[in-house]
Amino acid sequence: MPRAVAGPEIERLISLLARVPGLGPRSARRAALQLIKKREQLMGPLASAMEDVLGKIATCRVCGNVDVRDPCSICTDDTRDPNLLVVVADVSDLWALERAGALNARYHVLGGTLSPLDGIGPDDLNLASLVGRVHEGAIKEVLLALGGTVDGQTTAHYVTDLLRESGVKVTRLAHGVPVGGELDYLDEGTLAAAIRARTSL
Amino acid sequence: MPRAVAGPEIERLISLLARVPGLGPRSARRAALQLIKKREQLMGPLASAMEDVLGKIATCRVCGNVDVRDPCSICTDDTRDPNLLVVVADVSDLWALERAGALNARYHVLGGTLSPLDGIGPDDLNLASLVGRVHEGAIKEVLLALGGTVDGQTTAHYVTDLLRESGVKVTRLAHGVPVGGELDYLDEGTLAAAIRARTSL
Repeated sequence: MPRAVAGPEIERLISLLARVPGLGPRSARRAALQLIKKREQLMGPLASAMEDVLGKIATCRVCGNVDVRDPCSICTDDTRDPNLLVVVADVSDLWALERAGALNARYHVLGGTLSPLDGIGPDDLNLASLVGRVHEGAIKEVLLALGGTVDGQTTAHYVTDLLRESGVKVTRLAHGVPVGGELDYLDEGTLAAAIRARTSL
Repeated sequence: MPRAVAGPEIERLISLLARVPGLGPRSARRAALQLIKKREQLMGPLASAMEDVLGKIATCRVCGNVDVRDPCSICTDDTRDPNLLVVVADVSDLWALERAGALNARYHVLGGTLSPLDGIGPDDLNLASLVGRVHEGAIKEVLLALGGTVDGQTTAHYVTDLLRESGVKVTRLAHGVPVGGELDYLDEGTLAAAIRARTSL
């Protein structure tokens, strides 16, 4: 434990910053000092942005997204395709897909993937609400965007089985070579999948 | 500019987090999401720690340190050696020296180093207050901890000249091999300095 270099208020700020993902004990100190130096331009606005989000944040009762309104801005966005529902494990995946900008659909956030080793079973995920949404009838296609991990694949199979009797079309993201990726850095499984799913030019 | 994935309050939080040193646009998104998920345990305490620091932070009128009190906790610490004054360029250097724990002295923060190229001259640094403190008479030694850069060395020479007539002893940090450092990664200047300053075993 290094010696405290400033008052307890500053030390507390440093130790909390060190728990922010992307910052460690050392960079938290640097961040704290910059925040203190730029207190008018950065620390003040950041503290009030946090208070603002804290006061308004909610988990969407429809899809499980987090937003400053409930239902969230995606669920209430009438310009989105009502026929396509994209199932993701986590809000971070939803954000990643939205950033890609290739979809104009609504989402369903499971809140994780099935993981017997970690004790995460079907009852721990938002699966009942997914089945409920699909049975409402407007959705024609469920796209499972659950990642290529074993847990993601297991979850995709489980959801597919769960939705089989609803008659809805269930799809998954394509496997293949990442755009900009170099072949000799890719694993054999991805390469084999990219070969099997090769497309004509 | 990627599409906004959440309400403007969350996007504002992300863009402010991206300006914190150590976080970039991508890690700011990840940090924001973690803060939102851990809003009770992390974002709430962090926001209030910031508000707390914001309400109390001050620049010490004696030494230029930042702290939650003025004069700062180091200047008002009676257990510190009144004979030794350590001159640093920045508060981050003061924090680094305090963490090393090898000193029990007071400090003087110049607020930068002389840098003609960046237009930083003697009047931009806290030099007048340094001369004032030295002329009060209690200080016997001024340790210039200004780093090994050209600007740091220039500043050290300037301060040495400035304090010459006060009769106080002026010292600087030793150059040498970093503890745990490997010789073949060191530059020639450091190695030459370490050889010149070699010590008997």
